[in-house]
Amino acid sequence: MITLHHLEYSQSFRILWLLEEIGQPYELKLYNRDPESNLAPAEYKALSPLGTAPVITDEKGLVLAESNAVIDYILDLYPDSPLRPKPDSATRADYLFWFHAGTGSMMPMQFMDGIFTVLQKRSPFFIRPIIGAALGQANSLLVQPRMKTILDRLEHDLAEHKWLAGEELTAADITMSYCMASAKQKGFIDESRPGCLRWIEQMEATPSYQSAMEKDGRETMVFSF
Amino acid sequence: MITLHHLEYSQSFRILWLLEEIGQPYELKLYNRDPESNLAPAEYKALSPLGTAPVITDEKGLVLAESNAVIDYILDLYPDSPLRPKPDSATRADYLFWFHAGTGSMMPMQFMDGIFTVLQKRSPFFIRPIIGAALGQANSLLVQPRMKTILDRLEHDLAEHKWLAGEELTAADITMSYCMASAKQKGFIDESRPGCLRWIEQMEATPSYQSAMEKDGRETMVFSF
Repeated sequence: MITLHHLEYSQSFRILWLLEEIGQPYELKLYNRDPESNLAPAEYKALSPLGTAPVITDEKGLVLAESNAVIDYILDLYPDSPLRPKPDSATRADYLFWFHAGTGSMMPMQFMDGIFTVLQKRSPFFIRPIIGAALGQANSLLVQPRMKTILDRLEHDLAEHKWLAGEELTAADITMSYCMASAKQKGFIDESRPGCLRWIEQMEATPSYQSAMEKDGRETMVFSF
Repeated sequence: MITLHHLEYSQSFRILWLLEEIGQPYELKLYNRDPESNLAPAEYKALSPLGTAPVITDEKGLVLAESNAVIDYILDLYPDSPLRPKPDSATRADYLFWFHAGTGSMMPMQFMDGIFTVLQKRSPFFIRPIIGAALGQANSLLVQPRMKTILDRLEHDLAEHKWLAGEELTAADITMSYCMASAKQKGFIDESRPGCLRWIEQMEATPSYQSAMEKDGRETMVFSF
């Protein structure tokens, strides 16, 4: 039996959704962020190999972190799940692309955008305009164009099929959930991205997503920088 | 037949190494970076779905980007390859962890470190100290501690086994190659990290790595910010 250690407002929401979608028994432990630092509490950091969420454990001594490692590990336990298209399936390449592009391309830009926001907020007011100008330049030369390319690609693919890897929900959608919710919250996704908005609505209408949100008990999965 | 579109000094070196290790026929196209912008040339950007390296194509119309998506796709073609331990193998969890942690945890910190370097270099000299102080703070509060945690974990695991997921080379090592080479180049890995240095020596002594370096023709795989 897998135990999911779920940190509020974090990427471990993906695993909560995955486990609800699979619908087999698991244990859930909820952790609140430290109210002062906003980081994971000490007991969570001590448990997770890199101090990050998500992390899963089992009674045989497994301790595994990293969203996509955890997703692959859990899907190994359910080899017939349609959530990971088989190597010979027509949707395999699209599946692999979005399963990995969320972590490899989209999250790093969103993380950088968040750090730029924090850096600017925290700088003393008399140098804030200088810092703001430098970070604004990095944002407009790097983050914005890369996010545009990713969102254009999402619109392209979501005009062709319902979910990211075809007509059925897969773990590519589940891992992208955090990226998409965060992109909407930060204004990267708005009315100019109808495919992405439709995808977010579909996600929110999925029963397993709704159970996950209920167990999570927060109004959003996303951490606000 | 897979064609690898390899951009010099980029993460696509991983795929070159992977294909050399597999030892089956493939086509290789080499691309130089634009000498002014240091970015991928226009023809490469037009080919790759997000404009990033690596990208592979085949004669049936496949166009796939993202290092780990490409690695998983290629390993699907060689299901008996020991490079991806099977779900029931004892090394599966370690394999999945490092296969995903390179992209999910290590590269984002290294990328941020690179961007901080560029931001500071490019700022006008009279505000450079202010920018340097702000970025230095972000670096010491975020990048350095996270890199330390990752490198501590690498040392821990590499004290227990030869490669990242046991005694045999796997695709977890191959995808981590870029992170490790870059970490050494930027001084994150030095004599205080004997396990990482030993791993890098092992990598460099591997015949398939040496053939890949020869086909690449550059002195290093790593892009210098």
